[in-house]
Amino acid sequence: RSFATQARSSLKIGLIPADGIGKEVIPAARQAIVALGSDIPKPEFINLHAGWETFTRTGVALPHETVEILKSECDCALFGSVSSPSRKVTGYSSPIVQLRKELDLYANVRPVVSVAPNAGEQPAVDLIVVRENTECLYVKQEQQIDGPNGKEARATRLITERASRRIGQMAFELAAARSRKHLTIIHKSNVLSITDGLFRETVRGVPALTGKYSDVTIAEQLVDSAVYRLFREPEVFDVMVAPNLYGDIISDAAAALVGSLGLIPSINAGDDFVMGEPVHGSAPDIEGKGIANPIASIRSAALMLRHLGYTKGADRLDVAVDQVIREGRYLTPDLKGTSTTQEVLDAVLGKL
Amino acid sequence: RSFATQARSSLKIGLIPADGIGKEVIPAARQAIVALGSDIPKPEFINLHAGWETFTRTGVALPHETVEILKSECDCALFGSVSSPSRKVTGYSSPIVQLRKELDLYANVRPVVSVAPNAGEQPAVDLIVVRENTECLYVKQEQQIDGPNGKEARATRLITERASRRIGQMAFELAAARSRKHLTIIHKSNVLSITDGLFRETVRGVPALTGKYSDVTIAEQLVDSAVYRLFREPEVFDVMVAPNLYGDIISDAAAALVGSLGLIPSINAGDDFVMGEPVHGSAPDIEGKGIANPIASIRSAALMLRHLGYTKGADRLDVAVDQVIREGRYLTPDLKGTSTTQEVLDAVLGKL
Ligand SMILES: CC(C)[C@H](C(=O)O)[C@@H](O)C(=O)O
Ligand SMILES: CC(C)[C@H](C(=O)O)[C@@H](O)C(=O)O
Repeated sequence: RSFATQARSSLKIGLIPADGIGKEVIPAARQAIVALGSDIPKPEFINLHAGWETFTRTGVALPHETVEILKSECDCALFGSVSSPSRKVTGYSSPIVQLRKELDLYANVRPVVSVAPNAGEQPAVDLIVVRENTECLYVKQEQQIDGPNGKEARATRLITERASRRIGQMAFELAAARSRKHLTIIHKSNVLSITDGLFRETVRGVPALTGKYSDVTIAEQLVDSAVYRLFREPEVFDVMVAPNLYGDIISDAAAALVGSLGLIPSINAGDDFVMGEPVHGSAPDIEGKGIANPIASIRSAALMLRHLGYTKGADRLDVAVDQVIREGRYLTPDLKGTSTTQEVLDAVLGKL
Repeated sequence: RSFATQARSSLKIGLIPADGIGKEVIPAARQAIVALGSDIPKPEFINLHAGWETFTRTGVALPHETVEILKSECDCALFGSVSSPSRKVTGYSSPIVQLRKELDLYANVRPVVSVAPNAGEQPAVDLIVVRENTECLYVKQEQQIDGPNGKEARATRLITERASRRIGQMAFELAAARSRKHLTIIHKSNVLSITDGLFRETVRGVPALTGKYSDVTIAEQLVDSAVYRLFREPEVFDVMVAPNLYGDIISDAAAALVGSLGLIPSINAGDDFVMGEPVHGSAPDIEGKGIANPIASIRSAALMLRHLGYTKGADRLDVAVDQVIREGRYLTPDLKGTSTTQEVLDAVLGKL
């Protein structure tokens, strides 16, 4: 990707902690990035607003300014997590869904990897969920009418050839770079024969279209049985590619396999922007207690840097995190430890 | 329900084995029902066709005759499982989805219960998924067009107040009858604020509307985190109520917790018909080998009989199955045993 290999004297990173523990873990990721020193271009951080709190304060969940600054000034970004209102609130719309769309971050890449007991060993769980990030039920075309038997609400699920092709290509690219080179297409075409049929056929068509990836083996799995098999035999999966909503669900399912959502990173990637984002939510129950797990955010920073071509910096972060987990001395309560966010961060920084 | 308490001299049961292992497990369930003797009205079985094989033979997946006989002659039915074509086939549409709609079997009730080591002990997993069975993306309104950037496919997701209310009422009814009396509403209203908003609000409105269920506690969980929590802490759930597709996925997730899909029964229930159905699929990989687990079908028969008011017969089947599982001598390969379908059936019959 062109933007990944640009020579940069500095790296401009937008920080959007948003709500809840996002405000605790994004600053931790920032410190981890700073600690990489000369392995990456000098980082410059720009703090940006979005989220439910921003909405309650300003009436807008994703300020125009945030999008503009990301587009015009930033090389990449880190997003925290958003809280949702517990009741429908007029005018509120999830800023993360909007950001993915406005920046055309069409691929949500979520590696779910357990930490092997000893360095160099094969982890028990090692897969990547590649989630289409712009369409499916996330186009948010919904209406409600008053019908003769009461209210009727309809939502549109959009699947296009174009979006399926580019997410398919991203998934094949990632699969081809792995040792198993195995891609599983997740769908529900036994019910959604047209929309999921288009997704499945388009993804399957990527090798013929590109003349590449002939060494990648292809499998398919209905989304319901994919969740079942994730629990029962996760080793059958290598790279999984899925439409938006299925991808949302299976990445949470996969996360459960490795002990905590607090470990799982993601990037939202487009052709000219990348935004790291921990997969966990805003966790209102532990907000402000200083015990949120910073690892998902640190790993998201690593994934973002890797996508930009800064392999060395990314590797250093990942290795440090793996060591801290393997040692098990500094873990937050989600991993049955008693450490604070700061203690885990300090442990990671100490390994860098 | 009126039809449940009818005095019957005989019980007319439609049998629709359909495809794959359906043809092995439905006959087993039939034998288990016959063995109940005078605990139920004399069973009469009517064999009916549907499925992928029926389609390849006749061009129709759900013959008109099957629906007519179910409606006019049967008190209830047992459905096996359907295979799906591996590519889109013009004119083929899943017969189980169609049957649920044509018979207005609006509730798909799926108890997921593990067997405690000793009789009388609390099982580790004990929950019920109550899945709306007629709408959501299952309305199968899909179109594809050729747009300027290639093909575009759209599907409609329908959520109505009427269907949400009746499934909500069924879920509250089931929750109220349990010791924990706890209902969790599954939705994704942070993205689908209108459709899932309607589902959530309508289900929440059931106690006020009916003046009942004030002793049932209500919780909510986004579908992605529901799958995560099912894996991590299934004990938080008692009864879960969900729109169609989420219900499909979370019932498979829950099934993974108890060892095998081959154990999980369901009923498709409407106001005047009930159809038992194992949750597993047609399992083409083991079809014809005589090793399919008959327990899901036997338990589906029990659930169907229970719904019809034949508690004694249902209890006898469930107790016999629990004993066979607890003893662990006769188990099919999905449960790491070496027994055949027939051996497991014989073991169950031996306990009746
Ligand atoms: C917060 C929510 C809108 C979001 C999603 O569904 O995409 C979240 O679950 C995620 O996975 O990033
Ligand atoms: C076979 C398929 C159409 C069906 C469904 O999605 O409802 C199955 O997965 C089920 O759960 O009964």
